[in-house]
Amino acid sequence: MTEKEVVTVPGFLANGIVCGIKGNGKGDLALLYSEVTATACGVFTTNRFRAAPVLVDEERIRDGRAQAIIVNSGNANAATGTEGYEGARAMARAVSEKLGLEEDLVLVASTGVIGVRLPVEKIVEHVDSLVDGLDRNGITVAGEAIMTTDQFPKRASTTCRVGAKEVTVGGIAKGAGMIEPNMATMLSFIMTDAVIGHASLCTVFREVIEESFNAITVDGCMSTNDMVIIMANGMAGNRPIEESSDDMAAFREALREVMVPLATSIVRDGEGATKLIEIVIEAARSRDEARKLAYAVANSNLVKTAFFGEDPNWGRIMSAIGSTDVPFDTDGVELYLDDVPLFTKGAGGSDAGDRLAAIMKRDTVRVLLKMGMGDESFRLYASDLSHDYVSLNALYHS
Amino acid sequence: MTEKEVVTVPGFLANGIVCGIKGNGKGDLALLYSEVTATACGVFTTNRFRAAPVLVDEERIRDGRAQAIIVNSGNANAATGTEGYEGARAMARAVSEKLGLEEDLVLVASTGVIGVRLPVEKIVEHVDSLVDGLDRNGITVAGEAIMTTDQFPKRASTTCRVGAKEVTVGGIAKGAGMIEPNMATMLSFIMTDAVIGHASLCTVFREVIEESFNAITVDGCMSTNDMVIIMANGMAGNRPIEESSDDMAAFREALREVMVPLATSIVRDGEGATKLIEIVIEAARSRDEARKLAYAVANSNLVKTAFFGEDPNWGRIMSAIGSTDVPFDTDGVELYLDDVPLFTKGAGGSDAGDRLAAIMKRDTVRVLLKMGMGDESFRLYASDLSHDYVSLNALYHS
Repeated sequence: MTEKEVVTVPGFLANGIVCGIKGNGKGDLALLYSEVTATACGVFTTNRFRAAPVLVDEERIRDGRAQAIIVNSGNANAATGTEGYEGARAMARAVSEKLGLEEDLVLVASTGVIGVRLPVEKIVEHVDSLVDGLDRNGITVAGEAIMTTDQFPKRASTTCRVGAKEVTVGGIAKGAGMIEPNMATMLSFIMTDAVIGHASLCTVFREVIEESFNAITVDGCMSTNDMVIIMANGMAGNRPIEESSDDMAAFREALREVMVPLATSIVRDGEGATKLIEIVIEAARSRDEARKLAYAVANSNLVKTAFFGEDPNWGRIMSAIGSTDVPFDTDGVELYLDDVPLFTKGAGGSDAGDRLAAIMKRDTVRVLLKMGMGDESFRLYASDLSHDYVSLNALYHS
Repeated sequence: MTEKEVVTVPGFLANGIVCGIKGNGKGDLALLYSEVTATACGVFTTNRFRAAPVLVDEERIRDGRAQAIIVNSGNANAATGTEGYEGARAMARAVSEKLGLEEDLVLVASTGVIGVRLPVEKIVEHVDSLVDGLDRNGITVAGEAIMTTDQFPKRASTTCRVGAKEVTVGGIAKGAGMIEPNMATMLSFIMTDAVIGHASLCTVFREVIEESFNAITVDGCMSTNDMVIIMANGMAGNRPIEESSDDMAAFREALREVMVPLATSIVRDGEGATKLIEIVIEAARSRDEARKLAYAVANSNLVKTAFFGEDPNWGRIMSAIGSTDVPFDTDGVELYLDDVPLFTKGAGGSDAGDRLAAIMKRDTVRVLLKMGMGDESFRLYASDLSHDYVSLNALYHS
């Protein structure tokens, strides 16, 4: 997909405008709207400090329906107490009144600096023009208006066949910009015109989140505002997608084609990131153990700086997996960088110095660990750790 | 203690020489020796990849006795297989033969690059001169010979009264130099002339380790070679130190006076560290939960970079504790930087901008979190994350 390409999903309109929260003339207020009430599911941060919009949405999405999402950037509305909670409700209420929707059908998201009062009046007074500008092609400006320190907007779309009908899936995301918001807020909104029941939608959505947004890490930090929401408005008119069907397999694959690139683009755009490191754990006893090992590698600053330095430092990777509480036989582990073996039969090193050097220079590098214990696996996408990460996060002052 | 000061513990001799492993003309072989057999305890890395010397020592120290420790720097003798294990035994054997000791009384430690064969011949042929140079004041050169990327040698000593006798405790350490060894090897050797039973010594030693070497973190990485060993040779002739006695309280305090500064000096000398961050969790439900919360703050790269940038970014600290699995009431938590409140009653921020700026410029900054849940606490010493950390770890090539 090129950056110019517009993601349109039948029945969905969007807009993004400048309402002045950021104060730098850039878009900071977005709206996504479905012409009919959509089936909806959401996955939210598990941080104990949850921002006001997260609290509002968790409540509202429980009935499985939504029709609009208003999103501001520049202010996270987090650690803002009761006033922040009321502010989140007020910005949603303005949208529901203007669009003539039940209040509970409007969701709300915020990203930006925390602990600062949300300028809710500014948002409310811009809702008229936000709604008036709703457009089939508005997803581009919407995607730009949710950015904070993202260096590029993140969009993806695809289609699949369900019986005789074409089903579209599209989405936008904003990523791990930790400067302005003081932490790594990840927002993503997925739209589809599929006909699918609420339970089935939630099941497949959560499954794909495990392979996408829950399989990325920039610095191991979890935000107070993270959320990923899907709305399915049924306008494709397909036969309902049933669990364990071929239709579901096709729909899951379409979700993957949208959500995995959105998630990995967040890592690529991670602060100071110069590389995408794909960490694959195979032959683990359980998926949980595989995940734990993958995160141990991904969140080791020694591993991350080695990748920034383009150094195939197998010792740091082995030491990282050795430091978790997952038991394994060190002689049974195999480590590969791309397809070059770096550690096998209890000993490390490689004669393929030139090939390794070439692999390390790529912008995507795959680390494969075969644990020699079982059949479970986990794939994690991580970034390296660079001087720019330190600069961006040290030199910004709250 | 000034850097020139020499740590002498009655009955202990030491030496440090250049045997050529490092190849840069700096000391790389050290020996600590007690004139009589000492009671000994050791605490070793729990990394699944344990270096050969760790495996040898774990076996030898089981009987609670030791008389000498030979240490080389420049080569970790890790991931070196059976040959490495034999190499570790051979360097100890050379010492035992020269000194006329039972082989099992000689312990061995290594730190340096991993996955490279130990040049054991070089070590063995230097054992004669190593032993011949043993000296009461040799601890200074020994402390220098165990350094890798340490910028300064780490020594500490103190005395306490046990009945009518004076008991001395002294020690050396080398720290979190992760460039040359590829990871953070921490070694420390504590010597005392106290008379104390093996069980009591191990108990108090482990307790103090929990407050010192197990309460520091530079980057959350654990080495294959970490070890802390204590030898008590009884030459003070004091009445035996019994558990739960006033003598034990005095001895524990002496151990703390040596081991806490040694541990914090490792953090201060952490790669690229510009600050010591003292993280104190109070009013937690359990010590384990307090420890988990402290490590969540200490190992958050967002927190670490904020401290490098001297930014009192309370949002990152609150988000870090919110991301663990420790349940707490967010409204009951209080955060202080030094004595300035930054987050209380569910809301953050401070008017004391100038005082905060002054506090953040200090080379030691204290973060205090009162969890409002119980009586347990944990104190952790951490470093910040700087450009130099990235440079040191990215630009060194394995």
